Amino acid sequence: MIKANPNYFKLPVVYLFQQVAKTVKEYKDTHPNADVISLGIGDVTQPIPMASIEAMHKATDEMAKAETLRGYGPEQGYEFLRKAIIENDYKAKGIDIALDEIFISDGSKCDVGNIQEIFDVTAKVAIPDPVYPVYRDTNIMAGRELTFLPCKESDNFSPSLPQTDCDLIYLCSPNNPTGSVMTKEDLKKWVKYAKEKNAIIIFDSAYKEYIRTPGIPQSIYEIEGAKEVAIELRSFSKTAGFTGVRCAYMVIPHALKALDPNGKDIELNPLWARRHTTKFNGVAYIVQRGAEAIYTEAGKKQVKATIDYYMENARLIRTGLKECGFEAFGGIDAPYIWMKAPNGVTSVKLFEALLTQAEIISTPGSGFGTYGEGYVRLTSFGTRENTIRAIERIGKIKL
Amino acid sequence: MIKANPNYFKLPVVYLFQQVAKTVKEYKDTHPNADVISLGIGDVTQPIPMASIEAMHKATDEMAKAETLRGYGPEQGYEFLRKAIIENDYKAKGIDIALDEIFISDGSKCDVGNIQEIFDVTAKVAIPDPVYPVYRDTNIMAGRELTFLPCKESDNFSPSLPQTDCDLIYLCSPNNPTGSVMTKEDLKKWVKYAKEKNAIIIFDSAYKEYIRTPGIPQSIYEIEGAKEVAIELRSFSKTAGFTGVRCAYMVIPHALKALDPNGKDIELNPLWARRHTTKFNGVAYIVQRGAEAIYTEAGKKQVKATIDYYMENARLIRTGLKECGFEAFGGIDAPYIWMKAPNGVTSVKLFEALLTQAEIISTPGSGFGTYGEGYVRLTSFGTRENTIRAIERIGKIKL
Repeated sequence: MIKANPNYFKLPVVYLFQQVAKTVKEYKDTHPNADVISLGIGDVTQPIPMASIEAMHKATDEMAKAETLRGYGPEQGYEFLRKAIIENDYKAKGIDIALDEIFISDGSKCDVGNIQEIFDVTAKVAIPDPVYPVYRDTNIMAGRELTFLPCKESDNFSPSLPQTDCDLIYLCSPNNPTGSVMTKEDLKKWVKYAKEKNAIIIFDSAYKEYIRTPGIPQSIYEIEGAKEVAIELRSFSKTAGFTGVRCAYMVIPHALKALDPNGKDIELNPLWARRHTTKFNGVAYIVQRGAEAIYTEAGKKQVKATIDYYMENARLIRTGLKECGFEAFGGIDAPYIWMKAPNGVTSVKLFEALLTQAEIISTPGSGFGTYGEGYVRLTSFGTRENTIRAIERIGKIKL
Repeated sequence: MIKANPNYFKLPVVYLFQQVAKTVKEYKDTHPNADVISLGIGDVTQPIPMASIEAMHKATDEMAKAETLRGYGPEQGYEFLRKAIIENDYKAKGIDIALDEIFISDGSKCDVGNIQEIFDVTAKVAIPDPVYPVYRDTNIMAGRELTFLPCKESDNFSPSLPQTDCDLIYLCSPNNPTGSVMTKEDLKKWVKYAKEKNAIIIFDSAYKEYIRTPGIPQSIYEIEGAKEVAIELRSFSKTAGFTGVRCAYMVIPHALKALDPNGKDIELNPLWARRHTTKFNGVAYIVQRGAEAIYTEAGKKQVKATIDYYMENARLIRTGLKECGFEAFGGIDAPYIWMKAPNGVTSVKLFEALLTQAEIISTPGSGFGTYGEGYVRLTSFGTRENTIRAIERIGKIKL
């Protein structure tokens, strides 16, 4: 009989968010009148920018006529969108990225999951702990060995350098789940490490628009030499509320190299292009027009207003928790707040207390890794009203 | 230095369609006044159904309001779409498929590329020759060994059983590129083979709506016992002109089993669910509403009208070629016509003659595999006007 991929059996049995969903469902089923507020999974509540809505209507109409119909687009994404990204997200910030270094996709989750495919299965992977589980699970599925990089409160949750040599390193700033950010000095340290070890960094900056503190890098390419060692991932999900619209992009600079089977160093960009064109057929034209519209003057204003709204939620959660006597991190340059459980209280216990005593959904930190134990993640993506009501309830929980 | 995936270096250097595009571009560049007609890559020219356009407008408006915004959807796809698929594509045809056996994706190319991940890298893969290159390339990328199944004119281009045991078999009917279909007897033979060898069939029926001959199966599940051995792939690309909208689905029955690392047989459905939820975040809500609308009364009529239009093109190409003295296959139950080159003329030579003498873009059959040599693929997805003009020109070419 055909064998299943044996690596899948090394995965943790239940995907964290599914487990949380199950517990919540059970609570709701047994408490039909409960007024549960979700500060759990990082989904948005505010509408997508009107500029995107208008662009998507227009694009939909184009699909209704033979003269303007768009069939298969370029797998890498339409030039109009790649140009808008380069102009606004890079050139405007003094970073020079070429058109063929950008790859449009239907989400960062896919990019995170797929990028590991172009590397050898023997590549040693370093992953922060706590971490967005997709970095971990997709490498386990591929059969790779993992090293975890503790992110401790004493280091502002910035990952420590690995004790053993690593080939592929995942970094995320602003961070999911801790809400922390990596400073220029933090990133310099990593770029230097990657150069010394001939390693590659996968830099996930899906939350870059939430950075408020001057000097915190939005892009790893703000660090000199980073193009030789880093792939950057960005998403429209949290920038423009595209969680249900699905659009993201990845930057693979030509300067990025790896060894071919003959030990010769080759560019990774064409290797990824090959993967992308073979297993993917481009993002919907309508969606790409919606994403392009984010970069218009109107679109930029609308995006800023929505992010300001969420960041005010973040401030309310952060200050509210402190007023209730809880320690909390993040929420200054990130939409996530990392709430610390009082001594001896586990993540799951705090999650359960929040659910059953305050009817608030959080995400247990332990699901994100060993060093997430003792924390829960709260998100600022709720409505203002619910965020305020949630904070009022938190003061009442007993642990 | 980090090593690239060595399997990528076993791939043919240029992806067939890219090579064809390059040759065509060079011809156009050197002949700026050329009136080139594409019967090459299988992209559609007719607008998508008006029912889908209306549904997508409505869904777009929902994204503009907080009350109706849809963020992350279920990775597996919204129930409304999965239910419509089950009711119309299966239940109406006497086939019983459960809601959690359907997985919505952003395209069959992705499904074809990704499905192999849940199998062991040692699985022996059998692939028809000629073949849609994605079956081949994605398995080479994964490091698997391939066996090719010759599809010969003498067998109506139906693949022959492998000489050695195989674990995973790709079948495509109606076929891309040959335009042939597998009969009930053909499929019964394969289901029997798969049962005997404990193998699994990946059945690609992306073109099922083009079947006109009574009795030709649209679904492999029309064959008794097929649920125990087959995964079925379907796409809205050619059914409803969704090549630029991106939606497809895959059926993984619960009856389908493989061996876990302990040699115990386990269901593949939850394994794929794990893959799908870990590396994918669902298809855009707007797109899923567009796909759902295909199953309304209006949508069905519009789909039928468009397919009738393309099939009339297919008839014109098929009969036109015969009148010019060429042999041609397919085009009766499929949108593809498999044009045979006269004795001693290669696929590439015929492709070049069509391009330079008749200014028609075709796809050389040799790019689809050894047994594609001596043929080119023509598609019926052009406009009526261009199809008629193309056929008029074909009579003039000299080989």
